Amino acid sequence: MVLFSNDLDKAMAAMILANGFAAAGMKVNIFFTFWGLSVLRKNPAPKVQKDRISKMFGWMLPLGASKLALSKMNMLGIGTALMKDVMRKQNVLTLSELIQSARTAGVRFIACDMAMGVMGISREELIEVDEVAGVATFAELSKKGNTLFI
Amino acid sequence: MVLFSNDLDKAMAAMILANGFAAAGMKVNIFFTFWGLSVLRKNPAPKVQKDRISKMFGWMLPLGASKLALSKMNMLGIGTALMKDVMRKQNVLTLSELIQSARTAGVRFIACDMAMGVMGISREELIEVDEVAGVATFAELSKKGNTLFI
Amino acid sequence: MVLFSNDLDKAMAAMILANGFAAAGMKVNIFFTFWGLSVLRKNPAPKVQKDRISKMFGWMLPLGASKLALSKMNMLGIGTALMKDVMRKQNVLTLSELIQSARTAGVRFIACDMAMGVMGISREELIEVDEVAGVATFAELSKKGNTLFI
Repeated sequence: MVLFSNDLDKAMAAMILANGFAAAGMKVNIFFTFWGLSVLRKNPAPKVQKDRISKMFGWMLPLGASKLALSKMNMLGIGTALMKDVMRKQNVLTLSELIQSARTAGVRFIACDMAMGVMGISREELIEVDEVAGVATFAELSKKGNTLFI
Repeated sequence: MVLFSNDLDKAMAAMILANGFAAAGMKVNIFFTFWGLSVLRKNPAPKVQKDRISKMFGWMLPLGASKLALSKMNMLGIGTALMKDVMRKQNVLTLSELIQSARTAGVRFIACDMAMGVMGISREELIEVDEVAGVATFAELSKKGNTLFI
Repeated sequence: MVLFSNDLDKAMAAMILANGFAAAGMKVNIFFTFWGLSVLRKNPAPKVQKDRISKMFGWMLPLGASKLALSKMNMLGIGTALMKDVMRKQNVLTLSELIQSARTAGVRFIACDMAMGVMGISREELIEVDEVAGVATFAELSKKGNTLFI
């Protein structure tokens, strides 16, 4: 599974599917790339020396799972807050809880090294991942089964 | 196949692929979740008792296949109307016709129970589906073949 | 692989994955449809006789790989220019170079005939592709392996 997006709705869908697949006994790997890297960012951010461009990316991209916004009906954050509220009442896990649950279920997290380079994000700024790797690693994993692009 | 989106262009792509796969002899299941649920809404909507939040979702989300908009170049509806017009002249089936065709070809429609709960949509508000189910059901189906996320 | 999008970030992701899969020894086919057709447009555009609607599509859609914009943080083109600049400094190939590289690696390019009809794009307006075909051709290819929708 490739998680390319940092939309709250898509990241949740990815994690719900990952948890579901793991529960069904499948081995699941998630390759976090491009915008999807944001989902793994630690909040609060650790102090790291950065150049000007990397600082700008750091400032413009959402700081971790709790800061994502809906891809639609965000309405300056009102829609996102409302959706989170409705989900809590329906006992849907939050994105952070879904990530925890996926980790516990053995879902492997791989952070894309090229995206980290472009956005100037270092490993210490991310929550614990199993591996930092490139597309070659992911291609090998893809040979063994289904691949989703989210 | 997971249909997550309610963009007209993506829903059409999903249905064209579903019809194509079915014609090629493959068994196709579509799991309608999140925004994708809108595609299944009956129009006109049946009268149903709802709480305030569910009413709001009902009012803000498109009422079925004929009300979707393009993901790009929608231009307040002008682009969408124009695209529909061009497609009609090119003898491309409408989304509603593609859905009909998929049903006739034996494509199975599964509505996501979690999304229905969150958006306060009940089964009677949807066009005929084969099953209302959760991610566990979909994960089992995914074991048997390709999975697309649209 | 279906390339449905004409966002720069998604088209690049598709090409990076295609190159990675090909390098891992997999046979890769890309089916360019709907917005994704824009990625294949020649720039400058060859002179072709067109009706009014097709001219409008030609004018509104990006003219080839070098003209795409980011799906997020485009900011009237500033974000896209900045991202391209950062990528160049990180020695990431441009989209045009990734396309060249994919072609050299034997990735097959298929242009969707239905999308070409709807948008009034003829084969001579596209860079060299292996085939112009419909969903039936793609469905047959999908039987043999993984399918991504980007």
